[in-house]
Amino acid sequence: MSCEFKGSVERPAAGEIPEINRYFRAVGPKSSPLAAAKGKIMKRRQFLRAAGLGLATTAVAKPAIAQSMPELKWRLTSSFPKSLDTLYGGSEVFAKAVAEATDNKFQIQVFAAGEIVPGLAAADAVQSGSVELCHTASYYYFGKDPTFAFGTAVPFGLNARMQNSWWSFGGGAELMNEFYKKFNIYAIVSGNTGCQMGGWFRKEIREVADLQGLKFRIGGFAGTMLTKLGVVPQQIAAGDIYPALEKGTIDGAEWVGPYDDEKLGFQKIAPYYYYPGWWEGQAMGHYFLNLNKWNSLGPTYQSILRSAAALSNEWTLAKYDAVNPAALRRLLSGGTQLRAFSPAIMDACLKATLEVYAEVSAKNTDFKKVWESMLAFRNEQYLWWQVAEFTYDSYLIRTRTRV
Amino acid sequence: MSCEFKGSVERPAAGEIPEINRYFRAVGPKSSPLAAAKGKIMKRRQFLRAAGLGLATTAVAKPAIAQSMPELKWRLTSSFPKSLDTLYGGSEVFAKAVAEATDNKFQIQVFAAGEIVPGLAAADAVQSGSVELCHTASYYYFGKDPTFAFGTAVPFGLNARMQNSWWSFGGGAELMNEFYKKFNIYAIVSGNTGCQMGGWFRKEIREVADLQGLKFRIGGFAGTMLTKLGVVPQQIAAGDIYPALEKGTIDGAEWVGPYDDEKLGFQKIAPYYYYPGWWEGQAMGHYFLNLNKWNSLGPTYQSILRSAAALSNEWTLAKYDAVNPAALRRLLSGGTQLRAFSPAIMDACLKATLEVYAEVSAKNTDFKKVWESMLAFRNEQYLWWQVAEFTYDSYLIRTRTRV
Repeated sequence: MSCEFKGSVERPAAGEIPEINRYFRAVGPKSSPLAAAKGKIMKRRQFLRAAGLGLATTAVAKPAIAQSMPELKWRLTSSFPKSLDTLYGGSEVFAKAVAEATDNKFQIQVFAAGEIVPGLAAADAVQSGSVELCHTASYYYFGKDPTFAFGTAVPFGLNARMQNSWWSFGGGAELMNEFYKKFNIYAIVSGNTGCQMGGWFRKEIREVADLQGLKFRIGGFAGTMLTKLGVVPQQIAAGDIYPALEKGTIDGAEWVGPYDDEKLGFQKIAPYYYYPGWWEGQAMGHYFLNLNKWNSLGPTYQSILRSAAALSNEWTLAKYDAVNPAALRRLLSGGTQLRAFSPAIMDACLKATLEVYAEVSAKNTDFKKVWESMLAFRNEQYLWWQVAEFTYDSYLIRTRTRV
Repeated sequence: MSCEFKGSVERPAAGEIPEINRYFRAVGPKSSPLAAAKGKIMKRRQFLRAAGLGLATTAVAKPAIAQSMPELKWRLTSSFPKSLDTLYGGSEVFAKAVAEATDNKFQIQVFAAGEIVPGLAAADAVQSGSVELCHTASYYYFGKDPTFAFGTAVPFGLNARMQNSWWSFGGGAELMNEFYKKFNIYAIVSGNTGCQMGGWFRKEIREVADLQGLKFRIGGFAGTMLTKLGVVPQQIAAGDIYPALEKGTIDGAEWVGPYDDEKLGFQKIAPYYYYPGWWEGQAMGHYFLNLNKWNSLGPTYQSILRSAAALSNEWTLAKYDAVNPAALRRLLSGGTQLRAFSPAIMDACLKATLEVYAEVSAKNTDFKKVWESMLAFRNEQYLWWQVAEFTYDSYLIRTRTRV
C-alpha cells in the first residue's frame, strides 16, 4: 500500500539506545518530580486499606438512605451545542448514570449551549449559583486568568493519557481545584477529545512568514502564542465560524478533529487541513460545580458524581477515537489536502510558546505553579513514553497493512 | 541533553503527505468497518434522548429504593497479589466506589490471589458461582479457548486507547460478552497497564537465532507465536518467576513494565531489559461476573457497577503512567541495560504471529470473528493515529528538554 508514513516512523536505531542508558545513569537516582504523586498514592492506599477493613467490620451497619440520598433536581448548562454529539453527549451519559445509580432521586437535566446561558458563560452561571453545574472547557475562561488553560489544554502540553495521569496522580486535580476555589468552582473531569488537528486554511501555510497577518479562529490560550508570530487570533463561537471563513473575514479556523470539523463543514471552503494541533495535544473537559452545591452533597452523591464522570470520560475519548478515522477518510476522499506544519513552523511556535510561559509565569504565581508541575510531569512522561508506547505505535503504523 | 531518541522520531518528510492524500482518495468513500460502531452510537443517542425525555416527564415518579437497592455482600477474587498495588488496587477502588454509591448496601469484599482460589483459577470460581465476581486478565484462560486472549491483549493488537474504543464502540464488548456467555460470564472493563515491556533476559537477544531454545516466562497467548521461533514458553505465576530466573531454570521473563517489574526484582538477576512488549501493546483487565448474578441485579446496581468500573479503569492506567517513569529511572540508574528488539526480530515475530492468527482462525470461528473485528479496527485506528497523535508525540519527545 502506498500510505506508509515512513518519515515519522523510522525504526529505532540501535546506536541510540546506549545513549539513553548513559543519560539515565548520568542523572542517577534523584528526588523524582513524582514523589508527591507517590506520597498521594501511598496515602490513598492506606485510606483504601482502612476503607477495606471498614467494609469488613461494618457489614451489619444500617444504611441511612433517607439522609444520604435526598431528592435533587439539578440543572447542567453545556458549553456545547447538541449537534456536537460527542462533547454534548458526554453530559447525557453522565446525567443518565447519576439518575440510574440513584433510582432517579438525583436528576441532572442537561441544557445545550444557549438554552440557559451562552456556551462561554457557563462557568459564570455556576459561579453565581444560577445553575448547579456546567459542562465546559476550562480554557474558555483564560481571559479571567490564564491559569484556567491548564484544565483543558496548553500548547506543547500533555497528551490525553498523560493529562489524565497528571490530574489524578501528578497533583493536577489538587492544584486546579485550589485555583478554581477562587471562582467558587469545584471541577471533575468529564472527557477528552484526544490530540486535535491544526485547523483549516484557505491557503497553504508553508513557512513562518505565511502566519503574518493571518486571521485565524482559535480557542483558548494559544492565540497569545500565535500573536507573537503575527497571527490575529479570533475568538468565534462554533456556529459563527463557517460564515466568517466563507466570507473571508478569517483566513483559517481550528475546531477539534475530523469528526466534529466535518459537521461544521469547513472542508467546503478551506482545502488545507493541517496537523498536529500543537496547542491541543489533548483537550480535557470538565464538569464545573458550584462549590457550595458540591460541598452540600454527602459522600454518597459525591462518589456517584465522580464515578459517573469517569464513565463519561471513558465514553467521550473512546467515541472520538472510534469516529475520527472514518471522518478523515471521508474528508480526504472529498478533496481535502492533509498537510503537516513544517518543522520550521513548529519550532517557531514552540519558541513563541516558551516565551509566553516565561512572561506569564513572571507575573502570575498560580500560573507559574501549575505550569512547573505540568512541565516536570510532561518531561518525565515523554522520557518513558518513547520507550514502549512510541516504539509500539511506530511499528504498527509501519506494518499495519501486512496481513 | 544526550537522550534524544532521534532514530524513532524523525520529522515528517513533506513528501510523504501527498502520498497519504492519494491513498485516501484512491480508497474513496466506502463502507467503513466502523459502520457497525456508528449504528450503535446512533442507537445509543436515541436511547439517551429517550432517557432524557424520560427524566423530564418522570421527575415526580417515586423512587423505589427498597426493590432496586437490596443489601448484597459479594466476594471478588483477584488474580493478583496485594503487592502489585496497581492491578490489585484497581479492585479496591471499584469496591469502594460501589459501597459509597450504595451507602454500604452493596458491599464487594476483595480477596487477593490465593485467598479463596489461585490467581489463574479466578474465572473458574466465577463460572461455577463459588464467588460472584473476579478481577482477572482474560488471556489467562486462552488454554480453554484462544478467543479469551482478545479481552486482554493479543500480539500486534491495539494500544490502550484503541482497545477502550474497540470495546465500547467497535463491537468488542458485544463480541466478547457473546463469547463469555459460553462460560457463564459477563465482563466489564476494569483497567489497563498501557504498553508493556518485552521482558528481562540474562543474555542479549541480538538476532532471531538467539531465540532458539530460549526458556522464557510469558503470559497469555503470545507463547504460541514464540514457539514458532524456537522459544520454549513457560507459564509461571508471579511469585515463582524470580527463583526460576535466578537458578537459570528460565533464561528470561516478562511481567508488565518498570513499576511492577522492579517490585519482582528481575533487575538483580537479568541485566537486559527489552522493549516493546509486542504481545501487549496494552493489557486490559476485566471484572468477570457470574452471568446469573449479573442478570439478577436490577438496572440501578448494574449501572453502579459499570460506573465504578469506569473509575477503576481511569485510575489504573493513570497510576501506571504516573509511576512507570520514576521506576524506569531507578532501574536504569541501577545498571539495567535498555534494549530495543531489533527490526529483524520484530519482523520475525510479526510473521509468526500472522501465521498463528491464520491457523487458529481456520479452525475456531469465534476467534476468527473477533480477530477480524479487531484487525479492521486497528488498521483504521493507526491510519488516523499517525496523523495527529503520533506527530504530536514525536515532536514532544524530540523537544521536551527545550525550555
